[in-house]
Amino acid sequence: MNTNNKMILPSKAIICEVAPRDGFQAESEWIPTETKIDIIRQLAKTGVQSMEITSFVHPRAIPQLKDAEEVVTQVQDLEEIKFRALVPNVRGAQRAIDVGIKKLKLMLSATDSHSLSNANCLVKEAQEGFAPIIELGEKHGVKVGGSISVAFGCPYEGNVPEERIIEIVERYKKLGISEISLADTSGMANPKQVYELLGLLTNEFSDITFSMHLHNTRGMAFANAVAALQQGIVHFDSSIAGLGGCPYAPGATGNIATEDLVHGFHEMGVETGINVDQLLITAKDVQRKIGHDGGSFLLQSGPCSELHEKPNTQEKLNT
Amino acid sequence: MNTNNKMILPSKAIICEVAPRDGFQAESEWIPTETKIDIIRQLAKTGVQSMEITSFVHPRAIPQLKDAEEVVTQVQDLEEIKFRALVPNVRGAQRAIDVGIKKLKLMLSATDSHSLSNANCLVKEAQEGFAPIIELGEKHGVKVGGSISVAFGCPYEGNVPEERIIEIVERYKKLGISEISLADTSGMANPKQVYELLGLLTNEFSDITFSMHLHNTRGMAFANAVAALQQGIVHFDSSIAGLGGCPYAPGATGNIATEDLVHGFHEMGVETGINVDQLLITAKDVQRKIGHDGGSFLLQSGPCSELHEKPNTQEKLNT
Repeated sequence: MNTNNKMILPSKAIICEVAPRDGFQAESEWIPTETKIDIIRQLAKTGVQSMEITSFVHPRAIPQLKDAEEVVTQVQDLEEIKFRALVPNVRGAQRAIDVGIKKLKLMLSATDSHSLSNANCLVKEAQEGFAPIIELGEKHGVKVGGSISVAFGCPYEGNVPEERIIEIVERYKKLGISEISLADTSGMANPKQVYELLGLLTNEFSDITFSMHLHNTRGMAFANAVAALQQGIVHFDSSIAGLGGCPYAPGATGNIATEDLVHGFHEMGVETGINVDQLLITAKDVQRKIGHDGGSFLLQSGPCSELHEKPNTQEKLNT
Repeated sequence: MNTNNKMILPSKAIICEVAPRDGFQAESEWIPTETKIDIIRQLAKTGVQSMEITSFVHPRAIPQLKDAEEVVTQVQDLEEIKFRALVPNVRGAQRAIDVGIKKLKLMLSATDSHSLSNANCLVKEAQEGFAPIIELGEKHGVKVGGSISVAFGCPYEGNVPEERIIEIVERYKKLGISEISLADTSGMANPKQVYELLGLLTNEFSDITFSMHLHNTRGMAFANAVAALQQGIVHFDSSIAGLGGCPYAPGATGNIATEDLVHGFHEMGVETGINVDQLLITAKDVQRKIGHDGGSFLLQSGPCSELHEKPNTQEKLNT
């Protein structure tokens, strides 16, 4: 029996809102640029400090984000937000830098099958090709962070060995990368795995900042976030209203919803600086504007703080 | 930084399927007795060993379960399943015993508001009234377990102090009760709270077996289950297809789905003896027969083991 009665968690976590990239790109219907900008402006009012604003990929690959430049240009007055953008190659990096993006995120898969499908090359080849992007960033004083998709399980290959992730992180480190996002792209992670992999990584790479990008495909995203907190991780991605689906499971839940993650963190005393009420107002508006949510719990239930009036009549028994 | 890289969890957990009680009572449409029996028989084939089969309440209070006797009588050949039934009073207990139920569960709330609304009396009064039920059980060699609804938060009163739960457990202990189910009736628990309350309870009441009854109203049920596992708890309730809503949040998710809980536990190496494929077949059939599910993830996503064919064409970039 465990005699330690306290769950030790960090007192603060830093949330990066990813709906403008991961959420919007998952929509089949075109979202007008002004709607995107309106949502980004509403998000800025919630107190969120970081945002993945778009992806500078070829418009034919992801037409949903073909207005990347316009979106970035039109929200440049939001100086309180740290914007980052996803870039697949040097051309994308140059486009991002040209419109003033100060932080780039590289895209990489943990498995060769996923890499071949996404980037048409092996993981190692893809990663070795990052050097010119990193150089370009250095030249312009732009920070470049890494990411590892399907880090906890691959929809094509299944289990991803820990050694594979360690190798990839080592190569990132050699390239001079000091921030790495671990993505559970198709929601295959479990809390024990997250806890143990992060334990290994944080011990072995104490100079690298790891962040978590969690999808709630199998209902374990919040549990995975807690496991990460238990290993001292404080950087998390999430998406307003849970926008962002799973291409391998049509209809399945997408990214963990920002309102669910933030509310749950606050309930445990892990502060984020984000206002839950304002998040809920925004999530409702996003749901209305996009036409659906992506699996938000709080949109249905409201926060724990929202109490109900004591009923006068005897209710049905319910435990 | 935490240097312990292993998450220590029990190797086995015991699941009690509660859809036949908590799920069926939450449906507004009448479920025919033969459908109930068919679902119970399918559940028996999944390998689940315990089931909360019905509630012996007054038919006017919960007409959905007015066929309690008939249901129990018609599945008495399922000798491999340990059936338990919820009973609100001596009359209900006698009805349950008369049809051969060998385990009764008492109903109690953690807060006076919830108790007044459910049982029309204060918590302490309700609990003191249990003596004749326990006596009746002893007389017939029938085990009686306790429960505490809204143990982690009350929709009327909010926060439930740990001291309140300790008092209630002490009174249960004085009554001779050695098994207590802690219910997060309206999904207000968080993993830190679960971990810390269970740490207190298991240290203070080492002779009492605690079990967890979790609702996924705010997306934290699986995380709460993991926190309970981390405290050595091995007894969990869950409901096939997630049946069972939340009367305080219409449309919100109900009990944690058995398929989600069992799948997640197996992914972490916590065995249950239940077959996930058979659970999914049953969950799909339940969804079809009842007309909806109650927030099952696995019904949408399938298990992690269900891999996808490697695509030939380049897919859209997705992290």
